[in-house]
Amino acid sequence: MIPDQQPATFVERLRRVQRARDSALCVGLDVDPRRLPAGLSADRRGIERFIRGIVEATHDLVCAYKPNLGFFEALGEDGFPLLRAALETMPEDVLTIADGKRGDIGTTAERYAAALFEVLGFDAATINPYQGADSVEPYLVDPARAAFVLCKTSNPGSGDFQDLLCDDRGAMVPLYEVVARRAVEWNRRGNVGLVVGATYPEQLGRVRALAPGLPILVPAVGAQGGDAGQSIRLGAEPDGLGAVVSVSRQVLYASPGSDWESAARCEALALRDAMRGAAAARR
Amino acid sequence: MIPDQQPATFVERLRRVQRARDSALCVGLDVDPRRLPAGLSADRRGIERFIRGIVEATHDLVCAYKPNLGFFEALGEDGFPLLRAALETMPEDVLTIADGKRGDIGTTAERYAAALFEVLGFDAATINPYQGADSVEPYLVDPARAAFVLCKTSNPGSGDFQDLLCDDRGAMVPLYEVVARRAVEWNRRGNVGLVVGATYPEQLGRVRALAPGLPILVPAVGAQGGDAGQSIRLGAEPDGLGAVVSVSRQVLYASPGSDWESAARCEALALRDAMRGAAAARR
Repeated sequence: MIPDQQPATFVERLRRVQRARDSALCVGLDVDPRRLPAGLSADRRGIERFIRGIVEATHDLVCAYKPNLGFFEALGEDGFPLLRAALETMPEDVLTIADGKRGDIGTTAERYAAALFEVLGFDAATINPYQGADSVEPYLVDPARAAFVLCKTSNPGSGDFQDLLCDDRGAMVPLYEVVARRAVEWNRRGNVGLVVGATYPEQLGRVRALAPGLPILVPAVGAQGGDAGQSIRLGAEPDGLGAVVSVSRQVLYASPGSDWESAARCEALALRDAMRGAAAARR
Repeated sequence: MIPDQQPATFVERLRRVQRARDSALCVGLDVDPRRLPAGLSADRRGIERFIRGIVEATHDLVCAYKPNLGFFEALGEDGFPLLRAALETMPEDVLTIADGKRGDIGTTAERYAAALFEVLGFDAATINPYQGADSVEPYLVDPARAAFVLCKTSNPGSGDFQDLLCDDRGAMVPLYEVVARRAVEWNRRGNVGLVVGATYPEQLGRVRALAPGLPILVPAVGAQGGDAGQSIRLGAEPDGLGAVVSVSRQVLYASPGSDWESAARCEALALRDAMRGAAAARR
């Protein structure tokens, strides 16, 4: 087999799009019908219009989109067609991350992977590691598609279990570090990533050091208080790539008025450029 | 307010239906179109017919049904209407558990809870605790509806993290025990449960001792190797109630032939009666 005809792994695909677009920005689609801007109806039609507008306003500024599955599921029977329509509006080379934090075993995990990767065509999914290696493996079958494994999450209660000191093969380390170490071991096909909230910068730097080569998805920039530039400084590889920094509400709901599309673009542009600067300084 | 006019908590509802029907059996709906019995087409119509047949064959033998959301999601746009139709066929007093192992934070967790409890009307949901107390709380707002928190799961890899010895306030205990202890603290409204796989009987007994009063959902009986009677002996309260023992494939796919409905009933009856015997011996 000729090496350069092998399909690219997820990590290679991510590095390619991040380099081509010089962007680490991921826009999270936390689409809430109660927060649509002026002029859009809180129904299927209004939501579809809103998502199309956000993607059109940001499509050249991002390396990834991250639809938040919980928001789509709360829409009932409209959720699935709206999610499918949203995916169809996104550019080919931009990666799509299903943010559903799935975690299950055996045949059920295979069904979730089929739903996300085969039925909907996502490039990656966020996965909860609590059930162990065999609950993550079904998402790693295709090297081109990735599992972003929850490591240190952005919320106040993330320490309840993730910060517990655990005996990991003789060393006492916080649970989130054990997860990072296992994720490195699971990464045989170049398609395991980690999730670390921007609200925990110290832990983000620690995970980057523990897991060289693994992409890190960094949510909670903006409304939740994390900083975009800092997330790149701490979460990217030395070459400035490999961190996917996700912003949702700050972009989506940048303006409640009829200028929502230009306001969203303006926010996305500022975030991308702040991260460009941080990545350039990193190199 | 007159006390007996207060709405029942989830634990009270569960105890009521388990006592009235003298059954701890939960049938899990892991509906796979590739495994439908003879005579049913692998499309929406065939799947709907299959679910209706299983519910009709078992409706008087169970205390709960547990639709497995992964299997419905893999059906694409048919998944949501089939799930809603499935819920409509179930008797009023039987509890419904959304097995989706959700786990997320803040507004996203609220959206998942809205999808499961408000849009679909489930009585309970399985929840992954990795993200901490604030990721479970949104499912506990209504005392009548419950979160079954993953504790010790049935799969071979469950030990990867769940068995790690952790420093919990000065004592070294496995992570799954820390989860059980926290779940007891979270149970202020009588609506927190735990999930412990039947494949780990020793741990099931341990969790029952640590969490008196909390219902335990016990999956992995049957095809995965767990034993129904043993699950009651170890997982039920001293009065024989409080364990919900879930069986999926052994009932659903009891026969590949045209006798699938009577075969499913036969399996469910045998399982219910084995658990009745174990519960009676427990009292």
